[in-house]
Amino acid sequence: MKNLEKIVKAIEAQSTLHHGIYNYAIPDLWDNFGYQSSEKIVARDGNVLVNPYSFYSALIRDVFLKNAAEGIDYAQSYFKNRPVEPGFDGGDWIRKSNVYSMMIRASGSYDHDRTGFLEDRNLYRLKDTGTFIKAMALLPNLKKMGIDVIYMLPIAKYSLKDKKGELGSPYGVSNFYALDQGLKDPITGDSITVEQEFKAFVEAAHILGMKVIIDIIPRTNSVNSDLIAEHPDWFYWIDLQDLPDYRSPMVPGLKSALPARKEYAKEIYASPEVLEHIQKFRKNPRDLDAKTWRKMLKEYKSETNTKEILDLVQEYFEMTIAPAFSDCINDPQPAWSDVTYFRMYLDHPTASQPYLEKLGTIEPYILFDVAKSSLNPGNQPNLPLWDMLSGIIPFYQKQFGIDGARIDMGHALPEPLVTDIISKARAVDPEFTFIAEELDVVNAAESKAKGYNCIIGDGFMREPRVAEGLFNSFVYGAMNLESPLFACGETHDTPRLSARNGEETLTRMLTIFNLFVPNAIPFLNSGQEVFERQPMNTGVDCRPNEAEMLDANDPFYGKLALFDRYAFHYLHPDRWEFMNLIQDANTIRQRILPALLDKEKTFPLGFSAPWDMAAGFAYLHEEKMTLVIANTDMYRSVDHLIRLDNLPATFLENGKVIRQIFSSDNQSVWPTIEIDPYKNITLRFEKGEVKILEIV
Amino acid sequence: MKNLEKIVKAIEAQSTLHHGIYNYAIPDLWDNFGYQSSEKIVARDGNVLVNPYSFYSALIRDVFLKNAAEGIDYAQSYFKNRPVEPGFDGGDWIRKSNVYSMMIRASGSYDHDRTGFLEDRNLYRLKDTGTFIKAMALLPNLKKMGIDVIYMLPIAKYSLKDKKGELGSPYGVSNFYALDQGLKDPITGDSITVEQEFKAFVEAAHILGMKVIIDIIPRTNSVNSDLIAEHPDWFYWIDLQDLPDYRSPMVPGLKSALPARKEYAKEIYASPEVLEHIQKFRKNPRDLDAKTWRKMLKEYKSETNTKEILDLVQEYFEMTIAPAFSDCINDPQPAWSDVTYFRMYLDHPTASQPYLEKLGTIEPYILFDVAKSSLNPGNQPNLPLWDMLSGIIPFYQKQFGIDGARIDMGHALPEPLVTDIISKARAVDPEFTFIAEELDVVNAAESKAKGYNCIIGDGFMREPRVAEGLFNSFVYGAMNLESPLFACGETHDTPRLSARNGEETLTRMLTIFNLFVPNAIPFLNSGQEVFERQPMNTGVDCRPNEAEMLDANDPFYGKLALFDRYAFHYLHPDRWEFMNLIQDANTIRQRILPALLDKEKTFPLGFSAPWDMAAGFAYLHEEKMTLVIANTDMYRSVDHLIRLDNLPATFLENGKVIRQIFSSDNQSVWPTIEIDPYKNITLRFEKGEVKILEIV
Repeated sequence: MKNLEKIVKAIEAQSTLHHGIYNYAIPDLWDNFGYQSSEKIVARDGNVLVNPYSFYSALIRDVFLKNAAEGIDYAQSYFKNRPVEPGFDGGDWIRKSNVYSMMIRASGSYDHDRTGFLEDRNLYRLKDTGTFIKAMALLPNLKKMGIDVIYMLPIAKYSLKDKKGELGSPYGVSNFYALDQGLKDPITGDSITVEQEFKAFVEAAHILGMKVIIDIIPRTNSVNSDLIAEHPDWFYWIDLQDLPDYRSPMVPGLKSALPARKEYAKEIYASPEVLEHIQKFRKNPRDLDAKTWRKMLKEYKSETNTKEILDLVQEYFEMTIAPAFSDCINDPQPAWSDVTYFRMYLDHPTASQPYLEKLGTIEPYILFDVAKSSLNPGNQPNLPLWDMLSGIIPFYQKQFGIDGARIDMGHALPEPLVTDIISKARAVDPEFTFIAEELDVVNAAESKAKGYNCIIGDGFMREPRVAEGLFNSFVYGAMNLESPLFACGETHDTPRLSARNGEETLTRMLTIFNLFVPNAIPFLNSGQEVFERQPMNTGVDCRPNEAEMLDANDPFYGKLALFDRYAFHYLHPDRWEFMNLIQDANTIRQRILPALLDKEKTFPLGFSAPWDMAAGFAYLHEEKMTLVIANTDMYRSVDHLIRLDNLPATFLENGKVIRQIFSSDNQSVWPTIEIDPYKNITLRFEKGEVKILEIV
Repeated sequence: MKNLEKIVKAIEAQSTLHHGIYNYAIPDLWDNFGYQSSEKIVARDGNVLVNPYSFYSALIRDVFLKNAAEGIDYAQSYFKNRPVEPGFDGGDWIRKSNVYSMMIRASGSYDHDRTGFLEDRNLYRLKDTGTFIKAMALLPNLKKMGIDVIYMLPIAKYSLKDKKGELGSPYGVSNFYALDQGLKDPITGDSITVEQEFKAFVEAAHILGMKVIIDIIPRTNSVNSDLIAEHPDWFYWIDLQDLPDYRSPMVPGLKSALPARKEYAKEIYASPEVLEHIQKFRKNPRDLDAKTWRKMLKEYKSETNTKEILDLVQEYFEMTIAPAFSDCINDPQPAWSDVTYFRMYLDHPTASQPYLEKLGTIEPYILFDVAKSSLNPGNQPNLPLWDMLSGIIPFYQKQFGIDGARIDMGHALPEPLVTDIISKARAVDPEFTFIAEELDVVNAAESKAKGYNCIIGDGFMREPRVAEGLFNSFVYGAMNLESPLFACGETHDTPRLSARNGEETLTRMLTIFNLFVPNAIPFLNSGQEVFERQPMNTGVDCRPNEAEMLDANDPFYGKLALFDRYAFHYLHPDRWEFMNLIQDANTIRQRILPALLDKEKTFPLGFSAPWDMAAGFAYLHEEKMTLVIANTDMYRSVDHLIRLDNLPATFLENGKVIRQIFSSDNQSVWPTIEIDPYKNITLRFEKGEVKILEIV
């Protein structure tokens, strides 16, 4: 709250320096807290024209500061001040949450001066790209939709050298302990730092009852990391001339995209491509020539230097950091040119050493086995590096009061390091939650055993495939997993639901139904709520034309939020209707939430045949049975026969009333419902409609 | 030029009072004179953001004042200062002109603050609706397209009582001698009047070599005319209670929409509906009760009065002005509720008097015969009214330096009054041009005899009907008319070409071909150059859904420029390409212009058969033959066989070179052309393509 107060004062001070008439547009979705001003004009197309100084300061005062309780320090992690519900300790509160994945830079972007370009300094010398301050304007609506966790894509400093796209990827972190200066908002002037703005954002979220989770990336790092200067030995090195041909070597005789298990070592080291590849690696340049290294560092640290550290190494040594590539054998993905792996062990993987011995001296190298260090540890842990990595989360906890973290590629980290990371964070905050980047649901139990509170799972792969039956396999399978997982149809790496088969009907169906998947945590990808069609990245499950999901005239045609200047299409015509629908569905979710987490209270529903395009569950809570049923046919209205014989007999007795309380489709007719003698009901569903019924 | 200088000084004075950052959008089409400013931003969508004070003052300085010659008074009518070409005197210069029909209020409209609304005072307290000053920004492009006549829809004060649409129709004139105050631009502040702004507009046009023609409406007047107060006897009166049922009475036994010729008098006055109708008319209220009239006038003229004159008459007398209706018998059009006819004669039509005598006293009434006073004069001309009407043009000539006029419904005026109007104007300016609102080409000679320089004709009816052969009948017929006529495919009363069959292909074909119709004057309807689809009025030749030609989400859906706030879609994606095309075609037109006006130099072209979907002419000028040929098929590319046997033999001799010099279609291939032994050429045309060839 202290930080929010500082921010609002700084904005108000700036305001006095910036008089004038403002034609600064925000999407009306950002103006949902009763902002009133003589300077405000509601435009016909969904834009609202405001004085930005007055708007953002009113937002902070009216939405956040006014709702702050006395005596709570909102800058601390959320549960520092509050009791955790019994049975949900140790970060398990995430199981009852509702997550929104936000990329501050993109989610907070808007073409405020409507030039058709997202400028760093727009007509009013303010930012069109996203900032922590602007992202606060999203929070009232997220709150309304029932979101209580903001999961943030990386916000740390990332490398701008050879950057991908217009802005570079926030996954190419170059310094874990510094924030991305691009997220600083000029509206507060120079007296406030981006660090203070992030602190204020966390306070704001906490005031609305939202927790903040960040994404940390301990396995990879920018090839242009700030760490190179002090720790060249933490990285892998090749000659600069070998960079153009550098790629993941093929291993003949093995399938595509195989996990790098120990048992494949023989095949791996029999591959001529592998042998050629590992010969390319070199000692780190400091060890090669300490004198030149010192000279170079001197230039790097001189006041007049404008060069990046990697540029200097390349110049002085004609060497460079070896890029990372997938930790799977024979993965067809190209090398990840912007990031590299940390050197987790000072020796080669123990299981691979026998194959290497015959080859003479091999310098530290990157290969599938090395990359997947969890399965292929060495004998000599790089302890100073581990200390640095396990210190990241405590730094963000203490500095910014965050409540949880997702560990990127945690599955590829040495297990003791994972243990270290988790235990250090929990020492600071026992309620700190951990999300595993674990996509395979078969590893749910293992992940829980390691201390993670939930896994990401593969919802984004299975849920959209309704016609193939994979949505059904996902939702009916979720209740039996040892660990909760995300109920999500898209992520920042995948296609958008609205661009898949079924389009907006699919988005609507999955977004609503995901609020009711047993044992799962609803997860909304930023932009999904406005039926965004363009993916943020084409990393996973994408078609060749996935980056061209917009009209060719769209200013963001071909752009990807993860790399480029990108603003979501916040003026989608159904924006308010869909938000209100999510709000209504979430109200029902909150009412029956205990049942969603309790296998004993969850009753999977059947239909006339297993291949019917439908899915549903009944939930018993406080003497009421709530039935959530989806028509998974995106292209036809259908009569579904729903079998209720699975429900406790007491709900099928005479005198029980069954009625509809919700539909996701405003075309839908709400019928009078009767249970037939065979304990079935038959209901007409619109395309992709989700209906909620209640038996009392 | 004096006025332009005053305007620019006034804008610059206002500028110093209005500092700040401007997000004021203009369409890039308005920014075509090299405007440079650090405050200017070119947006991606075709908008340009400018400081309006700086933009409009630069426009006036750079486009107009800089190009003004010494010693010419641009505030005078155009030919006052310049010689007229021999053979083109007495207003005949219009025959060589290129006309743009402009409605200042609409053509100069733009949503500068992008609120989605055209405000009278936008965010910057400036006008989004059109003004004379803003309309100046259109002139550079019109000049580029070869336009040299601005034909302006009415700019006089019009009645706002019971107005049609959001703003009212400029055709409901309530005072000929006052300008519409709505056209005043606040950017000049209070020191400049709308009259000065109009004067400056005329100066600006004259500097670019453009003449200014206005539309005057002497036959009808607003039912709420300022003239009522002094001249109630110039109008027709009924009881207020008879207004709701008031309409054009049916005449049994006669066809629909017959001209009101004398010979129909018998049938007319045998109609019971007619007899009932004429009984409704009353003496004018002043003659009925002079004392009450004086009392009413006292209130009208009192300082505190806010009521309109007609409101007061209705209140004091329970009487009202009888609305006008069509001057055709059995015309299905409803009565024109907002306008009435002037009482041209003080007695009834001479030819109708015999039928009226038996009926006792009949007060002055409106009927087809009365309306069509040219065919049905009385014996006692209303001379004071005629004096007032014939004084209108001299007033505009002397005050504003205009160069011509169109006489609305001139065909319905008493002939001596027309003679009077024309001769008074020509006394002031012998080069003053007159355009007859004569649609029927059979009256071309008669119109010329009356002193008109050209007729409107029926191009807007026939040209768009390419498939029915009416385009061909129009263009091939034009050369034989006694009077030139407008080559136009649309007017402010008709559907837009881009909304007719053939859509933008039709617009493109007709706009280009109209530059080459022999004996015709190219006429471009404002908005046509940006493929506007929405008509300005649905008065003529419209389909029932003509007012719904825009996307339902368009801010102007269902709006008509003649009545409503309306801005043309200046950001059409092909705006520049089409303008450049018109420019190129016009360059060729200018080169061969003498031939276009000379029957001896004009050679109509034939095709393989008369029903071929093609039209064309060859023009002989300075030893060169220029062929202009259109494919009138809007839906197919076609090979047309063009017969050249009609051309002078010298152009078909060996050694002559025939080559293409223009195409209206950028898909078109420009072939090498050979004349076959039968004196034919065969060329491939794209849909609606106009090709221009040259034989040298």
